[in-house]
Amino acid sequence: MNLFYQPLLPEGILYLDADESRHCIKVLRHNTGDVIHITDGKGFFYDAVITKADDRQCTFRIQEKSAKPVRDYTIHIAISPTKNADRIEWFVEKAVELGVDIVSIINCENTERTYLKKERLEKVAVSAMKQSLKATLPRIEGLLEFDAIVKSEASQKFIAFVDQQNPDHLKNIALPGKDYLVLIGPEGDFSAEELSAAIANGFQKVSLGQSRLRTETAGLAACHILNLAND
Amino acid sequence: MNLFYQPLLPEGILYLDADESRHCIKVLRHNTGDVIHITDGKGFFYDAVITKADDRQCTFRIQEKSAKPVRDYTIHIAISPTKNADRIEWFVEKAVELGVDIVSIINCENTERTYLKKERLEKVAVSAMKQSLKATLPRIEGLLEFDAIVKSEASQKFIAFVDQQNPDHLKNIALPGKDYLVLIGPEGDFSAEELSAAIANGFQKVSLGQSRLRTETAGLAACHILNLAND
Repeated sequence: MNLFYQPLLPEGILYLDADESRHCIKVLRHNTGDVIHITDGKGFFYDAVITKADDRQCTFRIQEKSAKPVRDYTIHIAISPTKNADRIEWFVEKAVELGVDIVSIINCENTERTYLKKERLEKVAVSAMKQSLKATLPRIEGLLEFDAIVKSEASQKFIAFVDQQNPDHLKNIALPGKDYLVLIGPEGDFSAEELSAAIANGFQKVSLGQSRLRTETAGLAACHILNLAND
Repeated sequence: MNLFYQPLLPEGILYLDADESRHCIKVLRHNTGDVIHITDGKGFFYDAVITKADDRQCTFRIQEKSAKPVRDYTIHIAISPTKNADRIEWFVEKAVELGVDIVSIINCENTERTYLKKERLEKVAVSAMKQSLKATLPRIEGLLEFDAIVKSEASQKFIAFVDQQNPDHLKNIALPGKDYLVLIGPEGDFSAEELSAAIANGFQKVSLGQSRLRTETAGLAACHILNLAND
């Protein structure tokens, strides 16, 4: 099944944009009268009938609208950008597939790369949402300063940080049905100041397991563990 | 910390190969007398003192040898190659980081791409092993036919397959301390014949969660769930 995306559908826009139209008509060879599936990225799926099979602006009428069942938890991962931009794009793709709600790209003391192609990350998120047949487009935020994200509210707040005082494994302290926020540091890890600021703001230090993980792998592992806690 | 790799160390080879020597001497600027850390990829770490800081053949003598604590479980993921080769390389990198023992690349009925750069996958595995400071190099096998892998032995065998008969979630049926084998199908999934052959050979049908995952994401999710069952 193919899922198309029209974020302005709730505002009454009843056609696909140029890229989506091309894909629908030229690549998938849909014709007038065919039923296609569309999401608005805001929690709804639509069955639509093509009224004009135009490969620049494919118009349709809604046959049926259905709401995606709402989860009773949200996952917010705040992560430092990686030196290699592909790695953070890969993280966004996989986190969307597994089910993330908000991704914040954060600038930490040891963050080496702060240049961020936000539009690119949003494109990656849209295609991952379509590919995994989700109806909600996760929000991509950034670049945010650590000092700002550390003051954010959530019902369970974690900072991935392993030290001598052996923190608990995230899987053992994540409670189901919460709004989670997890901070994932850069290659050089969080600074002592950042760690204490997080603790002071109600974050719990957590481990993600035995292995030493790259930044993007740690972000994905955290996202997956929180999903498993609710699956 | 940097970890170097010399698979022939147990056979008495006391130097780094050209690439590793260049990295050690040219890039990291190590000198004679410096202590470096080496693994043989067979479960051992070595502290070694550089005896000749040659950027083509850096020689060393062993100061101390230590065995990596052995896990009481093994993870074997048998996965179909993806159309896009980058995706299976990415899977190997991440599975090694999280902790996989054997990766078999398998040719299924719906596998679209059977051409496999095995040397490339082994390179990826080596650098992921070094990066995550592991002492054991996972084995990469392939390309294997589905008919061969389905006859393999393991103490818990799973096939990732979701259908109307709602299979159990892997996290609920994976027992700790086992030798696991998980089959991950291609984009087009396993055929009905492959599924029944797996069942007939003692594989359990499992779900990896709510989301529709790409092949490489499913493989990584399975690997991570099995690690978490033992963490």
